[in-house]
Amino acid sequence: MRVLGIDPGFATIGFGVLDFSNNKFKTIDYGVITTPPKIEFSTRLEMIYDDLTLVCNKYSPDAVSVEELFFNTNIKTAIAVGHARGVILLAAKKCGISMFEYTPLQVKQSVVGYGRADKNQVQQLTKTILGLSEIPKPDDAADALALAICHAHCSGSILNKY
Amino acid sequence: MRVLGIDPGFATIGFGVLDFSNNKFKTIDYGVITTPPKIEFSTRLEMIYDDLTLVCNKYSPDAVSVEELFFNTNIKTAIAVGHARGVILLAAKKCGISMFEYTPLQVKQSVVGYGRADKNQVQQLTKTILGLSEIPKPDDAADALALAICHAHCSGSILNKY
Repeated sequence: MRVLGIDPGFATIGFGVLDFSNNKFKTIDYGVITTPPKIEFSTRLEMIYDDLTLVCNKYSPDAVSVEELFFNTNIKTAIAVGHARGVILLAAKKCGISMFEYTPLQVKQSVVGYGRADKNQVQQLTKTILGLSEIPKPDDAADALALAICHAHCSGSILNKY
Repeated sequence: MRVLGIDPGFATIGFGVLDFSNNKFKTIDYGVITTPPKIEFSTRLEMIYDDLTLVCNKYSPDAVSVEELFFNTNIKTAIAVGHARGVILLAAKKCGISMFEYTPLQVKQSVVGYGRADKNQVQQLTKTILGLSEIPKPDDAADALALAICHAHCSGSILNKY
């Protein structure tokens, strides 16, 4: 099973591609899609959509794992990230890829084993699980890899379709 | 100048197409795009994107006028509408149409003449300005026509490019 994890945003979108079979992970690629701040917002949305479509077409994942949005503070940021996440879901949908959503709590439980793990613990375990020599950088890419691990773990134990 | 007004949402998206020249309006079309509640959210986003692309291609507007999002209450709804508005902006962008955003205050000021007008006053004036025999239904379509009027008024007075 190949999983594309996506950490949504409108300035920086993390992505991570993993293969998972026989309980083993293979890291295929990870990185970030970025959009410059001083251009039209709709142009940024188009860049996100086009770049993510390229990633989907390049790696043909079986599933996309996206973080659910939770915001308690800045509603303006929440709406802007909502816009970006809308085009992210559309890009995956147009590529015909199944989508799965996970909360930060689910990601922490899946990667570290408990939901109150801090960011650094998640990154350390992501590195260990994937057998990488260093913590993946930047943070958004590491978060995306953790989301991909979460889906691989969850679908392996809950679903039999893979 | 042809303007497409859009009232964003994820269940019901209003649209209204107007021609404006020599200070006169001609109503070309109006209506709503709807998505059923019980299907996958990403499928609803795809329906909105595809249907709006059809509207843009059918009427080839010079400009799209979209309502800015303001939410003070339900952040969950705000994020969901943000997703839908993201794919709406993307559809217009992919069709190469210029986009303009207006607040509800600007729409009221432009259509009724003052920013504290109520919904019914806006709808009555929309009907009168467009010379329609009845108030356009449903409300989302009427709101979209008001947005189109707002852009026509604003661009006529502020910009010379039309």
